[in-house]
Amino acid sequence: MYRIDLNCDLGESFGAYKMGMDDKVIPLITSANVACGFHASDPVVMEKTIAMAAEAGIQVGAHPGFPDLMGFGRRNMAVTPEEAKAYTMYQIGALKAFVEAKGMKLQHVKPHGALYNMAAKDYELSVGICEAIKAIDDQLIVMALSGGQLVKAAKDMGLRVALEVFADRAYEEDGSLVNRRKEGAMITDEKEAIQRVVRMVKEGKVRTITGKDIDIKADSVCVHGDGVKALLFVEEIRKTMKEEGIEICSLQEIIA
Amino acid sequence: MYRIDLNCDLGESFGAYKMGMDDKVIPLITSANVACGFHASDPVVMEKTIAMAAEAGIQVGAHPGFPDLMGFGRRNMAVTPEEAKAYTMYQIGALKAFVEAKGMKLQHVKPHGALYNMAAKDYELSVGICEAIKAIDDQLIVMALSGGQLVKAAKDMGLRVALEVFADRAYEEDGSLVNRRKEGAMITDEKEAIQRVVRMVKEGKVRTITGKDIDIKADSVCVHGDGVKALLFVEEIRKTMKEEGIEICSLQEIIA
Amino acid sequence: MYRIDLNCDLGESFGAYKMGMDDKVIPLITSANVACGFHASDPVVMEKTIAMAAEAGIQVGAHPGFPDLMGFGRRNMAVTPEEAKAYTMYQIGALKAFVEAKGMKLQHVKPHGALYNMAAKDYELSVGICEAIKAIDDQLIVMALSGGQLVKAAKDMGLRVALEVFADRAYEEDGSLVNRRKEGAMITDEKEAIQRVVRMVKEGKVRTITGKDIDIKADSVCVHGDGVKALLFVEEIRKTMKEEGIEICSLQEIIA
Amino acid sequence: MYRIDLNCDLGESFGAYKMGMDDKVIPLITSANVACGFHASDPVVMEKTIAMAAEAGIQVGAHPGFPDLMGFGRRNMAVTPEEAKAYTMYQIGALKAFVEAKGMKLQHVKPHGALYNMAAKDYELSVGICEAIKAIDDQLIVMALSGGQLVKAAKDMGLRVALEVFADRAYEEDGSLVNRRKEGAMITDEKEAIQRVVRMVKEGKVRTITGKDIDIKADSVCVHGDGVKALLFVEEIRKTMKEEGIEICSLQEIIA
Repeated sequence: MYRIDLNCDLGESFGAYKMGMDDKVIPLITSANVACGFHASDPVVMEKTIAMAAEAGIQVGAHPGFPDLMGFGRRNMAVTPEEAKAYTMYQIGALKAFVEAKGMKLQHVKPHGALYNMAAKDYELSVGICEAIKAIDDQLIVMALSGGQLVKAAKDMGLRVALEVFADRAYEEDGSLVNRRKEGAMITDEKEAIQRVVRMVKEGKVRTITGKDIDIKADSVCVHGDGVKALLFVEEIRKTMKEEGIEICSLQEIIA
Repeated sequence: MYRIDLNCDLGESFGAYKMGMDDKVIPLITSANVACGFHASDPVVMEKTIAMAAEAGIQVGAHPGFPDLMGFGRRNMAVTPEEAKAYTMYQIGALKAFVEAKGMKLQHVKPHGALYNMAAKDYELSVGICEAIKAIDDQLIVMALSGGQLVKAAKDMGLRVALEVFADRAYEEDGSLVNRRKEGAMITDEKEAIQRVVRMVKEGKVRTITGKDIDIKADSVCVHGDGVKALLFVEEIRKTMKEEGIEICSLQEIIA
Repeated sequence: MYRIDLNCDLGESFGAYKMGMDDKVIPLITSANVACGFHASDPVVMEKTIAMAAEAGIQVGAHPGFPDLMGFGRRNMAVTPEEAKAYTMYQIGALKAFVEAKGMKLQHVKPHGALYNMAAKDYELSVGICEAIKAIDDQLIVMALSGGQLVKAAKDMGLRVALEVFADRAYEEDGSLVNRRKEGAMITDEKEAIQRVVRMVKEGKVRTITGKDIDIKADSVCVHGDGVKALLFVEEIRKTMKEEGIEICSLQEIIA
Repeated sequence: MYRIDLNCDLGESFGAYKMGMDDKVIPLITSANVACGFHASDPVVMEKTIAMAAEAGIQVGAHPGFPDLMGFGRRNMAVTPEEAKAYTMYQIGALKAFVEAKGMKLQHVKPHGALYNMAAKDYELSVGICEAIKAIDDQLIVMALSGGQLVKAAKDMGLRVALEVFADRAYEEDGSLVNRRKEGAMITDEKEAIQRVVRMVKEGKVRTITGKDIDIKADSVCVHGDGVKALLFVEEIRKTMKEEGIEICSLQEIIA
């Protein structure tokens, strides 16, 4: 049977600043990537976010990012693998305290923004991130771009990996995401975007921007909860998956 | 038999900024209060500090403070008990990740600076701090000013408490520390300072700034590692304690 | 002839976080208090905000706050007058660069949130703030709570002062604002709120929460731009002022 | 007659963290690059540093850096030219307030660390920085790596430029600094380092790491004040320059 996890970044508010529609998207997803206070969030927001996730019964992962609140963790920073390791341990540790206080268990770790993108291309950086994860709990699932270096590093270190795919992004022939600045980088037709996910799950294939089919494995699809349109798209994905006989379930049930 | 713990604030460097002589003071103390990145420290410093403490075999506690790096956590901030709880959980959780990665167990929590001083006088704030500690691990020892509100809140909530005393500070009749700006607030004669500790441990008494004897209980003495003079003072305390038959041992051995 | 300035806090977005409806409220006000990066805003937001104000032709003031982004500058912090002076100089200087780059002249300075409230009650703190203002430009207008200590300090130091009043807040007999946590602190009836402003401007009187009339002088009314309701209220104020023969004009035209 | 300016980074302390021996190096230099609160410093430190510079009668420049206090501004960050412009305006404006409050005039702007190094290689980023400088005061001198892109951008925009050279760093054939990680990157022999400066000033030549002579123009030499050894080196430079008939004077006297 086919199965897929739906993951979404949550808990990105900060102090008086509100971001996202967390309460609306939580019922629609199976895994929440919760910001840890470096690129977004603060301890009060983290406590509330975990409480909401606990009540809804969805799985929670840490979403560590660069120490760049002003840039929302979206700007590349030349940190060393040692710094990446320490920053990741710190953020996972902080979030884990809130998760365990609610009687839950942290499910996964997904780096955020520029850290995610840099790790996908940089094996050494990925090793730093994985060392942090392994040092904290070697049963944590690493969620990473399908085909990227973080997947490779995590597997080399014996960690469990969840392969993430994107419904609305075009792929290059090497499996990397097409740069957003390039034409055709975004799949704007929603039906097409969802059908691509169906094919990734069922056939393990995706058509690249060059028109070639490549192999891709999908454990989780990244969705967004930052607007009404985004929420409708998630509902549409859920509906189509059901029609296609693809079960939406948490990573824990998918990853051995 | 008489016993006392020697505690010291450690790991207060930040990025390129160095503070303290951690490597020199670690062999002289039994409990380290390690900064957690809010008023001082960063993840890289935390990892190094915990590695040093692990190698030396001393016990480690979290030293959470206000989110005020510019003021080193020494300025009162009007946070709510809910904020204090979340800030404390976050910081303990972050430090705990580094401690457990080294195969150690977090021993205690001692609030830093203005948070410590405000908690000593504010029961509600203290309850917020204790809720965080209890939510993480109800076996954690709360280190607090002997006679203060944090001691009361911790006991009311069933937490274990270590009573902290100061060798170089004068006391008011109600057991609080004399404000630093008041004349006579600091005990400048080192021999006198050490003899006061001996008396606190053996007789459970201290002479206040007004000349009256009050009851005081001492589980731990706060010492400093920020200069050659401070280090010599710690060595002098150790020597005198030995001569007086007072064993210097970790909090774990003192607190039931 | 009667005259009043309408001031509003602007430019409070930060990085990816949006706050306020600046473009909507700018056409309705005469003075903008622009956040300077400590409690809110960042350099990119400041540049955009000043560009919008310049285009609309409204006057701009600096809105310095505590270095507490997480608390939006709303939490009391025990800074010294020297720290308050340096923080204020830094923030005014930073904003002034953007203002002058647009060929404008900085009109006023209004402290934000907890700094505003603390200054209203603390003469020494107010002196620190005024020293910063005077050191930068002794023609800057200090906008402060009518009747508070910042007004007194500014006048003692020979600075020009704009007296600020609040339409939606109740007053104590000493002219201070009723604490928000007290019942009756907010004037919830919009018509009443506006009529109170009319009376403050024309008669120089306001009825306190205890029912007594006290003297009050009003140079500027604080309005908000953080929602549709707030914007409608500003439009209502403008309409009523016109009907009452009160001219809405910038502080520069009001303050000698 | 030959002339050279000696510049040094100053005012890098932050809150309770002390860095550098500013009081010792100030009498030995002619231009101070003062940190502006992003990569180092805070408003209180800035006020004190400017007061010291004013008393010593040396010239002051702004030393803006990346918003990365944890990394001391030494890590590359992928900011846009627009962000670089706004960050630079903010920091120059803030420092300028303290400078002008002391009756001085800001002399120059020298980007710090990673921003300096990135600008030397990135024309677009350099344009962003220069737009900020020009918007504030088109008479400000841009201090930049001799031969780099910031020099080019500044000249293209009609700004005055001071060409900076390094005594203790090896050069590549294209005039860029040899990467610190490469062998031979540092000139460790102090006599040789100083003789290289003499030759750069008198002959306008420097021998590259490959053994080839290239043209180089030197208006200012970067020196350090972060230790006794660094201070002795500055004294040695001063002595040798005097013997060689090279006058040490401020940038203002050197740059037309």
